[in-house]
Amino acid sequence: MDAPRYDSLTALLVNCSLSPQEEQSHTGRLLDVVDHLMSGAGVSVDRLHAVSHDIAPGVQPDMREHGIATDDWPSLWPRVEAADIVVLGTPLWLGEESSVCRRVIERLYAMSGLLNDAGQSIYYGKVGGAVITGNEDGVKHTSMSLLFSLQHLGMVIPPQADCGWLGEIGPGPSYADPREDADPVGFDNDFTRRNATIMSWNLMHTAHLLREAGGLPTYGNDRNALGDGELFGYAAPRPVAGQG
Amino acid sequence: MDAPRYDSLTALLVNCSLSPQEEQSHTGRLLDVVDHLMSGAGVSVDRLHAVSHDIAPGVQPDMREHGIATDDWPSLWPRVEAADIVVLGTPLWLGEESSVCRRVIERLYAMSGLLNDAGQSIYYGKVGGAVITGNEDGVKHTSMSLLFSLQHLGMVIPPQADCGWLGEIGPGPSYADPREDADPVGFDNDFTRRNATIMSWNLMHTAHLLREAGGLPTYGNDRNALGDGELFGYAAPRPVAGQG
Amino acid sequence: MDAPRYDSLTALLVNCSLSPQEEQSHTGRLLDVVDHLMSGAGVSVDRLHAVSHDIAPGVQPDMREHGIATDDWPSLWPRVEAADIVVLGTPLWLGEESSVCRRVIERLYAMSGLLNDAGQSIYYGKVGGAVITGNEDGVKHTSMSLLFSLQHLGMVIPPQADCGWLGEIGPGPSYADPREDADPVGFDNDFTRRNATIMSWNLMHTAHLLREAGGLPTYGNDRNALGDGELFGYAAPRPVAGQG
Amino acid sequence: MDAPRYDSLTALLVNCSLSPQEEQSHTGRLLDVVDHLMSGAGVSVDRLHAVSHDIAPGVQPDMREHGIATDDWPSLWPRVEAADIVVLGTPLWLGEESSVCRRVIERLYAMSGLLNDAGQSIYYGKVGGAVITGNEDGVKHTSMSLLFSLQHLGMVIPPQADCGWLGEIGPGPSYADPREDADPVGFDNDFTRRNATIMSWNLMHTAHLLREAGGLPTYGNDRNALGDGELFGYAAPRPVAGQG
Repeated sequence: MDAPRYDSLTALLVNCSLSPQEEQSHTGRLLDVVDHLMSGAGVSVDRLHAVSHDIAPGVQPDMREHGIATDDWPSLWPRVEAADIVVLGTPLWLGEESSVCRRVIERLYAMSGLLNDAGQSIYYGKVGGAVITGNEDGVKHTSMSLLFSLQHLGMVIPPQADCGWLGEIGPGPSYADPREDADPVGFDNDFTRRNATIMSWNLMHTAHLLREAGGLPTYGNDRNALGDGELFGYAAPRPVAGQG
Repeated sequence: MDAPRYDSLTALLVNCSLSPQEEQSHTGRLLDVVDHLMSGAGVSVDRLHAVSHDIAPGVQPDMREHGIATDDWPSLWPRVEAADIVVLGTPLWLGEESSVCRRVIERLYAMSGLLNDAGQSIYYGKVGGAVITGNEDGVKHTSMSLLFSLQHLGMVIPPQADCGWLGEIGPGPSYADPREDADPVGFDNDFTRRNATIMSWNLMHTAHLLREAGGLPTYGNDRNALGDGELFGYAAPRPVAGQG
Repeated sequence: MDAPRYDSLTALLVNCSLSPQEEQSHTGRLLDVVDHLMSGAGVSVDRLHAVSHDIAPGVQPDMREHGIATDDWPSLWPRVEAADIVVLGTPLWLGEESSVCRRVIERLYAMSGLLNDAGQSIYYGKVGGAVITGNEDGVKHTSMSLLFSLQHLGMVIPPQADCGWLGEIGPGPSYADPREDADPVGFDNDFTRRNATIMSWNLMHTAHLLREAGGLPTYGNDRNALGDGELFGYAAPRPVAGQG
Repeated sequence: MDAPRYDSLTALLVNCSLSPQEEQSHTGRLLDVVDHLMSGAGVSVDRLHAVSHDIAPGVQPDMREHGIATDDWPSLWPRVEAADIVVLGTPLWLGEESSVCRRVIERLYAMSGLLNDAGQSIYYGKVGGAVITGNEDGVKHTSMSLLFSLQHLGMVIPPQADCGWLGEIGPGPSYADPREDADPVGFDNDFTRRNATIMSWNLMHTAHLLREAGGLPTYGNDRNALGDGELFGYAAPRPVAGQG
């Protein structure tokens, strides 16, 4: 099979690791897999190591206008805006995404008032995915939350748009930890390899499909029209039948 | 704006209410809204009231072959297979989807070994959404789980593919309960109305887009090829940098 | 150390496996560990294999009074009522508890209108725990939901009141599956062994503590008094400070 | 009824609001209710407004020893250590707890290697609760995660140990927002008032019970003994019965 080329697409891979050093991040290594597959197909891949930036708490576009001294978010936003594909990568702590990941989601949410030229949410036309690593538990739980957030904001979620690695339950090594007499941890896991591959390609296929179609039609989701009271065919249902 | 026509699409709306009488189901009434919008656009809408069927516990396609006396699932499956759009509707109990809803998801999962003609999961080419009602809390939590399940099985999740109604926290009336001097409960809630409208149209738009494109390309997600060891460009990353 | 004796306590271990044959349930085997520890301390242990019973859908105490032909729940309820310790055991499917488990929780919720002699919820004085097995992911996610439900109903949750087993991410063997040249799957996992041990003892210690104390004092949680408008010291706070 | 006195107990109420100004926090106002009830019973109540402190990302006790320039956590830790009762309060964004709340949980987790004098987790002997406010959805979802974290670390979760306020689904006012012709938002909600009352008293009752008992017995949960291989009665179960 010939691999498709997607030279005109852009992907933003956000690593929400707690590690200040990107090269020490286990999640970052699984994001490398996605990066390699997408770059190989011609996609422009942008990598963002969130904890290295001073992203202020809050749900406004620029928190410097709301009493916080510094905020890197406004300077990061154009990188989100430019991306056709947004992947959130996070480690697991107590079975949940990192605080850095929630901070990023809060600030994505802070931009949800913006509209594109067609009057749709600014996130329409983008596709979203999730990459999660831990040593024991929580990939599905965290994918539920991350993918929900991205679709709620307006992105399309392709089929099987998450991947991750977990070891057997309990403390243990993490993804990509080096081993003396074997490949690094997780590299021999077919499930992780396949899901990372499927996810990467489905994100590219779906972003391309959306691009080619010029995004989704605006009928039913045009926020200006909805704001003006347009119903787009809505009618109230009948009430619940009495139980008396 | 002229409403698009989607006459060749089929939608399956599954109501996972605990009520044996469909007309007494609050969730069913919000599904009516989706039904009305889709039917109005020409979509063939199939309604399934799950609790009225004897769906056996288990994760095999036909539990009668695994020691259970009766199982309606095999006779229901063709209705899922025929659908371009699958919407799961559920009430909330203790903040979670109903047992009937989990039973349906278990049996959808039971079919995940099936492939389409292109070697992809049988659910590829379909789109999924969620409709949730309760009287106090849990639409987002439950959407996370339902939409995750549908995308994990192979469906595309369009933007804003969930809707629901909740009253102020605490016991109270449910969606579509009749009131003496006012419209039935929830009918005046703009948020619910808009989200039901956006969801319905985005499901149709995205299903149409997928249909027109002939589904997603198979590169990267062809399960026969993956099973034969095809890597689709995958390469292992470098290991995590030492911390010594 | 001498092991404490808890001869006057009763525990109900509910297995929410989808397997009709209890001896084929992986979750049942981890419940065996809890059973062994509790029985060894003198606790009367009652085992309930939920899927073997015809538990009707619904949230009323007896669904036969609400149009459903058969319902085993009323005959099972005295076993819940008799228990000082309630443990829910469930397998994982798509990262969630089984439909059988949700059915049991719905029916526990159906009894939440009952009060004990002190006017507290009928579940006051009981302690709850969770036992979860799967082959790849979801112990923490499911524990969150199960333990939340039990505490919401009125049980105390002791420290570290959950345990489980998961293998490395991806398809694979399940807990207690026999192996040719090794102990059955998971039996060599120290984390699972320890957590099952800690959970079992903490459930017993806490149930004993509650029993010795005669349950929790009723001040603040007496539902009859709350219903009569007793405030128990409540006062409204000041409003949020203006932002103008 | 005479209210019990709990003069020797200490409670730490952590507000994980994103608002730099505590008096503008809606969650803070519901924490005021808890503060009033506990203070009224003689409990020493300590209030912590987390976002006002520079709590470093990471899962080590002092991140200044791991390459981060500043970290207030070590100076905050004695306040956690002194508390018999720990309440996490959080707002909801996209149905989840705030990034500030996850940061606090990460740092609580960072201390989980510490043991008390009896060899138990340092959190044994404490009780935990959750206070959550939003304008539409997510109290139960977030309670699941917060209470799970606290019990996993070693705290006891009393019955009904969470409370919150939510308005009808959709954008709207938040708890304690002033209104012109009525009490502030949510103050007339009986469900919120009762649950805040029940939670506050049950936290006090349970903390007192644990204090009087000298904490939980160490049999089964003594981490030094577990580390030395003590089994506390554990025995492996039989394997799953063959299905051949």
